[in-house]
Amino acid sequence: MKRIAVLTSGGDSSGMNAAVRAVSRAGMSAGLEVYGINYGYKGLVEGDIVQLEPLDLDGRIASGGTFLHSARFPEFAEESVQLKGIEQLKRHGIEALVVIGGDGSYHGALKLTKHGFNSIGIPGTIDNDIPGTDFTIGFDTAVNCATEALDRINDTARSHQRTFIVEVMGRGAGDIALWSGIACGADAIIIPERDYDIQEIADIIVRNKEHGKEHSLIVIAEGVMSADDFKRQLDEHGDFDSRAITLGHIQRGGRPTAKDRVLASLFGDYAVKLLLEGKGGLAIGIHNNELEAHDIIDTLENHKHHTDVALQDLNNRLRF
Amino acid sequence: MKRIAVLTSGGDSSGMNAAVRAVSRAGMSAGLEVYGINYGYKGLVEGDIVQLEPLDLDGRIASGGTFLHSARFPEFAEESVQLKGIEQLKRHGIEALVVIGGDGSYHGALKLTKHGFNSIGIPGTIDNDIPGTDFTIGFDTAVNCATEALDRINDTARSHQRTFIVEVMGRGAGDIALWSGIACGADAIIIPERDYDIQEIADIIVRNKEHGKEHSLIVIAEGVMSADDFKRQLDEHGDFDSRAITLGHIQRGGRPTAKDRVLASLFGDYAVKLLLEGKGGLAIGIHNNELEAHDIIDTLENHKHHTDVALQDLNNRLRF
Amino acid sequence: MKRIAVLTSGGDSSGMNAAVRAVSRAGMSAGLEVYGINYGYKGLVEGDIVQLEPLDLDGRIASGGTFLHSARFPEFAEESVQLKGIEQLKRHGIEALVVIGGDGSYHGALKLTKHGFNSIGIPGTIDNDIPGTDFTIGFDTAVNCATEALDRINDTARSHQRTFIVEVMGRGAGDIALWSGIACGADAIIIPERDYDIQEIADIIVRNKEHGKEHSLIVIAEGVMSADDFKRQLDEHGDFDSRAITLGHIQRGGRPTAKDRVLASLFGDYAVKLLLEGKGGLAIGIHNNELEAHDIIDTLENHKHHTDVALQDLNNRLRF
Amino acid sequence: MKRIAVLTSGGDSSGMNAAVRAVSRAGMSAGLEVYGINYGYKGLVEGDIVQLEPLDLDGRIASGGTFLHSARFPEFAEESVQLKGIEQLKRHGIEALVVIGGDGSYHGALKLTKHGFNSIGIPGTIDNDIPGTDFTIGFDTAVNCATEALDRINDTARSHQRTFIVEVMGRGAGDIALWSGIACGADAIIIPERDYDIQEIADIIVRNKEHGKEHSLIVIAEGVMSADDFKRQLDEHGDFDSRAITLGHIQRGGRPTAKDRVLASLFGDYAVKLLLEGKGGLAIGIHNNELEAHDIIDTLENHKHHTDVALQDLNNRLRF
Repeated sequence: MKRIAVLTSGGDSSGMNAAVRAVSRAGMSAGLEVYGINYGYKGLVEGDIVQLEPLDLDGRIASGGTFLHSARFPEFAEESVQLKGIEQLKRHGIEALVVIGGDGSYHGALKLTKHGFNSIGIPGTIDNDIPGTDFTIGFDTAVNCATEALDRINDTARSHQRTFIVEVMGRGAGDIALWSGIACGADAIIIPERDYDIQEIADIIVRNKEHGKEHSLIVIAEGVMSADDFKRQLDEHGDFDSRAITLGHIQRGGRPTAKDRVLASLFGDYAVKLLLEGKGGLAIGIHNNELEAHDIIDTLENHKHHTDVALQDLNNRLRF
Repeated sequence: MKRIAVLTSGGDSSGMNAAVRAVSRAGMSAGLEVYGINYGYKGLVEGDIVQLEPLDLDGRIASGGTFLHSARFPEFAEESVQLKGIEQLKRHGIEALVVIGGDGSYHGALKLTKHGFNSIGIPGTIDNDIPGTDFTIGFDTAVNCATEALDRINDTARSHQRTFIVEVMGRGAGDIALWSGIACGADAIIIPERDYDIQEIADIIVRNKEHGKEHSLIVIAEGVMSADDFKRQLDEHGDFDSRAITLGHIQRGGRPTAKDRVLASLFGDYAVKLLLEGKGGLAIGIHNNELEAHDIIDTLENHKHHTDVALQDLNNRLRF
Repeated sequence: MKRIAVLTSGGDSSGMNAAVRAVSRAGMSAGLEVYGINYGYKGLVEGDIVQLEPLDLDGRIASGGTFLHSARFPEFAEESVQLKGIEQLKRHGIEALVVIGGDGSYHGALKLTKHGFNSIGIPGTIDNDIPGTDFTIGFDTAVNCATEALDRINDTARSHQRTFIVEVMGRGAGDIALWSGIACGADAIIIPERDYDIQEIADIIVRNKEHGKEHSLIVIAEGVMSADDFKRQLDEHGDFDSRAITLGHIQRGGRPTAKDRVLASLFGDYAVKLLLEGKGGLAIGIHNNELEAHDIIDTLENHKHHTDVALQDLNNRLRF
Repeated sequence: MKRIAVLTSGGDSSGMNAAVRAVSRAGMSAGLEVYGINYGYKGLVEGDIVQLEPLDLDGRIASGGTFLHSARFPEFAEESVQLKGIEQLKRHGIEALVVIGGDGSYHGALKLTKHGFNSIGIPGTIDNDIPGTDFTIGFDTAVNCATEALDRINDTARSHQRTFIVEVMGRGAGDIALWSGIACGADAIIIPERDYDIQEIADIIVRNKEHGKEHSLIVIAEGVMSADDFKRQLDEHGDFDSRAITLGHIQRGGRPTAKDRVLASLFGDYAVKLLLEGKGGLAIGIHNNELEAHDIIDTLENHKHHTDVALQDLNNRLRF
């Protein structure tokens, strides 16, 4: 193997740049030439492919977003477009591709693999919802961002004896809600993986007030419903001077945490190691602190992410 | 003078605790007894008044929100209720009151002053919209919070070639929008103090893209309209892959910046100095780096805050 | 079991308050009375023991340091003093003790256990050097603090083409150095677990400059030597315009990261669960994402912390 | 005027990039070509001069350090070298130069001005020690960085009942010490502008302990002496379990605060405005919230920075 390429795709997450750097530097350390593909699968098909030099990567590890950019490209669902992408790779003499992204990005890598082009997927998404890994790149940063925002909101809630309902991201998964909710001492965490009882939550707020805790914090995952909709439900069960807040896009960007940088470094290095061993068609992950690689087809078709719902029970024991 | 009291009222802002500490410590240094009133004017009328000891204030300078709490209390508009508040103060032997808060809080202080009870207002609000001062306590923290959020959003905008419309707080004033917008290199800043031309803004985004800057950031003050409404307007003038975001309540809380802590310290100390000189019925401010005190009645009835709209022109010269 | 107590001991670490909260709240949820012991073993022996109420714990999860305080108390090495501590516990009707701290704190818990008083140790130290766990409370916060500081230093190094040698904490362990070093793209990470070759490091800096990277960053664990001493060694091998920096105590405090808050919550809850099951004399840990409890005597006497030194190899592959 | 150039010189400070951007964008908005000079006066003399395009400046406003780099260049003290610099500027058709930096950088601009080359100085240094301005670019960021570090140290001091002596930067000026000291509730702030009485400081710590505040924080400006030396003095007056810490280089870099970004934007824009009016030989500043420009020769030769020493009195009234 002499040349590999790397691209980012799907929603950006903090640590993607650290992963691009790791793939590139590990590749260069092993004597490979490494090419960066701009704008994800769109750039792949259009041939927006440039060789990365060591200096191009200087300082990237500390930055948010993706300097290779990402782009929507539904056309990649068509086989003819996929084959055009492979043509571009071959024209540049590239023998393997590392894709950093989420669910959708993996499906692109899977298609390339099915067409016989060696592709490896690195899980990069804030949502932590990729099968085959305990943690994805960007999750820790998103959780810390949400946690800092919830801390700020708690200051106001406490000052004004209010109930705040805060919607955090996570697509269909409750991971960000669970981690940030525990971290901020939420009175309730509502996740898509489990039902909730609106009366029970109203009762918690009432009981809090009776025992001297005048403010309440409810963290709800976007996969359940909007904060506004939940507020409407809650307001039917009492007058809690409630406010609905959607944290929104601030959770995606920002300087990555140390953990996301280290995780991205481990993943990128591991991807290159696998490619050098002649392996491909894999989805990389970390499970119980060990790096693992699984067949990308099997991973996507037969597995799904499991949120650690026991964290909700933990929070129920620790809340006020 | 032997006893003074301090309360916070209205929306919380970071640095209010630093101001309470400053009033208290400056008072104690001058030999006064200082009482804290919980829950603003509501606590005043209900007699929720406790003496503050030096240790009660330890560490408060670094904390967000208000540990004296705040509360809605529309009843204070009634004269009989105001007089009941004065009665409570007199019962505790309190001779003067320092009120930390925004517009509405000042009106309470004004009422007490009109009834002959010596009151001094310290401007505490994130909105920076109080007459008689260039800066209010909490504004710098709110601007830095918004700036950090906009930086994060810029990471995503740049990664995805998107246009983000971000609504920041400020009530009727454009100050937070102007400062955070300049700080993040916004392509347009929309403020209530000035009209805007939606076609001109659409043209800026188009021109940006033509010159290679694929993402755009528009910061809009809540006093103009919601980000969602603005997005609807903009979308009629082109397809910008735009997203609307409301930063919301995260702008209120959080650890105060150094500037807000120092400003709060200056204000609190100055309020006590004025009271010791036998003065009252005043609104404190800082103008051109000098502490000033103005008649609270005149300030509220005859003056209004002037946003530095020339900052918008500055931004227009510096944007891409 | 009806009453348990909790204390913090040794150097403070961020997340200790979250652990105290978790022990207390989990205990209260299970119907226990929970007592807080101030000033560690000193307060234990002197009887500075107070019942904790739910409201005492409000907001603690987000705060640094330890609100139960810590104190040096070498006298606890004496058996008579240990027995006096047990007497105090019994006088308060306390049946089990949870100790949050590092190495030295565990030895106290071990002594109590040997005297037959049920004690459980929760690993709380920034150094990550406790046997029986992959991660300790405070490590992630310290790593992120060091990472942010190294990012700042990188700004200056890059601006001035300098070589910075930065000493981070960790006592005898290289964990903080490895994680923060990888996170900031260090050119070399020097740890006590492995030898280093000063000539090799000088060569790296020279080679960096030859290839256009004019600044260099060396992260050294305090367990190796001081940054000043290392600078003296390096300066003998070339003129690198080097600067030595000791990050120092800023690495201990500060708001805990989300990960440290969740970890502390898991540990505290787990300690109570074990006590309720009638277990004791244990050291709690997390290994491969699973909570574990080991005999505290065996853990301290027969095991030691293993730093993941392979991270140094990873960094060597990824550096410029 | 058709072409101007900009350089940064001396120690880096956060916001320098924002100032380079502002000079460049304001220049471009006015139809000028703007050149960036790399490595300060060294690059000027060596002709390391490149035209800046709008995209080169994208995202710079949020970054620390200086992307134009800085360099030591004592040779610029010689007249022949200065003339060679002017030659380079003329060769590129550059008619005016904006210099961003501190004291030493201004002297370079002064020399060029004396030789008849139009130069304008923008104050960029964390130390806030430039005559002709109330605030310099980077000061607010440095103060906030020191404040955050002191907050962290306070967590540990409070946990362990210790006295921390923390040395902050500022060269000969006490500004950083005063602002960060007030912001963190320091028990004493030691600055070069005023004498101190070591016995008085020891007494404060003793009195604190007697009144229940067991920890103390002393902030000392580097212009007085090192934290280590001060600790030795203090230790002769009592046993305070004291620790000496030097914050060091972390105070220089990092993302600039909103205030530093806005200040840099105002300065850069103003410099271009003056040049367009045919003015030069000026040092820019902000005084009482108004932009001002003073003769650079007069400013450097006849004026000096005045630290607001009354802030020390303020702190003495507000401390415990």
